[in-house]
Amino acid sequence: MEKVHYTYQDIHRTAKDIAGRVKASGFAPDIIVAIGSGGFIPARILRTFLGKPILAVGVAYYDDQDRPTELPRTVQWIEEAERKLAGKRILLVDEVDDSRTTLEYCIRELMRHRPAEIAVAVLHDKLKEKRGVIPPEVSRYFAGEKIEDRWVCYPWDAEDIDEHDAARLAEGKAAGAS
Amino acid sequence: MEKVHYTYQDIHRTAKDIAGRVKASGFAPDIIVAIGSGGFIPARILRTFLGKPILAVGVAYYDDQDRPTELPRTVQWIEEAERKLAGKRILLVDEVDDSRTTLEYCIRELMRHRPAEIAVAVLHDKLKEKRGVIPPEVSRYFAGEKIEDRWVCYPWDAEDIDEHDAARLAEGKAAGAS
Repeated sequence: MEKVHYTYQDIHRTAKDIAGRVKASGFAPDIIVAIGSGGFIPARILRTFLGKPILAVGVAYYDDQDRPTELPRTVQWIEEAERKLAGKRILLVDEVDDSRTTLEYCIRELMRHRPAEIAVAVLHDKLKEKRGVIPPEVSRYFAGEKIEDRWVCYPWDAEDIDEHDAARLAEGKAAGAS
Repeated sequence: MEKVHYTYQDIHRTAKDIAGRVKASGFAPDIIVAIGSGGFIPARILRTFLGKPILAVGVAYYDDQDRPTELPRTVQWIEEAERKLAGKRILLVDEVDDSRTTLEYCIRELMRHRPAEIAVAVLHDKLKEKRGVIPPEVSRYFAGEKIEDRWVCYPWDAEDIDEHDAARLAEGKAAGAS
């Protein structure tokens, strides 16, 4: 599969753009929920522009014996969740909407805590058939960019950040980044 | 106070350097614990090089009515912590060791879960008098860089990432970054 690279600067600009659209939409989150570990970096940047605290949740696709699992399982959830999330407006953040399975799982878990509203923000939404669905209770969905179904290389996964940035430069505008 | 800027690339290289030193020290963490929200980005980059899952904890210096507090309080802690942390080797991660108060608070909380070992990693350790202490039970302390007591500007806090990077460039080697 063809690769596409994003620099940290691309990610920062995309998160800023998402934050602007969140504000323009009239949605004022009380809290940001980051899906770990991919959502940690976009959530932290969104926090700069939205000024709201972050709670983290972790889901994994391996079991306690490191065997791969078909369905996600919870690695970390939110303590005292009822108190923290009931009646709150949540912005759920992840890096990429790929198969949509993780998003659906997290949304359904969050809905059990009876928030006032759930919106979703992802840096990138892959234009492909999805296995998961965004439940109708989700009021808003913000995608930084809609992208082709490529192998996305995020800067935080780079073994060598200079080589990563050089690869992005070589892709140029074809990367789809502004 | 004089400012010092770090780019995302500086941070990525510093985290990679820390990971190399963690490995060289013989410390093999089972789990990374990120102190939110400052530790989210360094922890996520460390994960790339150490290959271990991240749990997040949140501490805040404001109360439920948004009034500032002198001492940190827990915003998020680790569910089923006994099961997750007992007997484990933990690498606790934050962005900067400033007054050391947050680190001490988190270390003492983690110690209650009886881990096998706790090590600490921070991107930057400020050379200044500390209000908190690193308890002697902490086996190892990794600081990406020891820096003067300046106003540290992290890239994830940048309103404009291009201006931020330009400010870093203007500081040049004086920033203390490699």
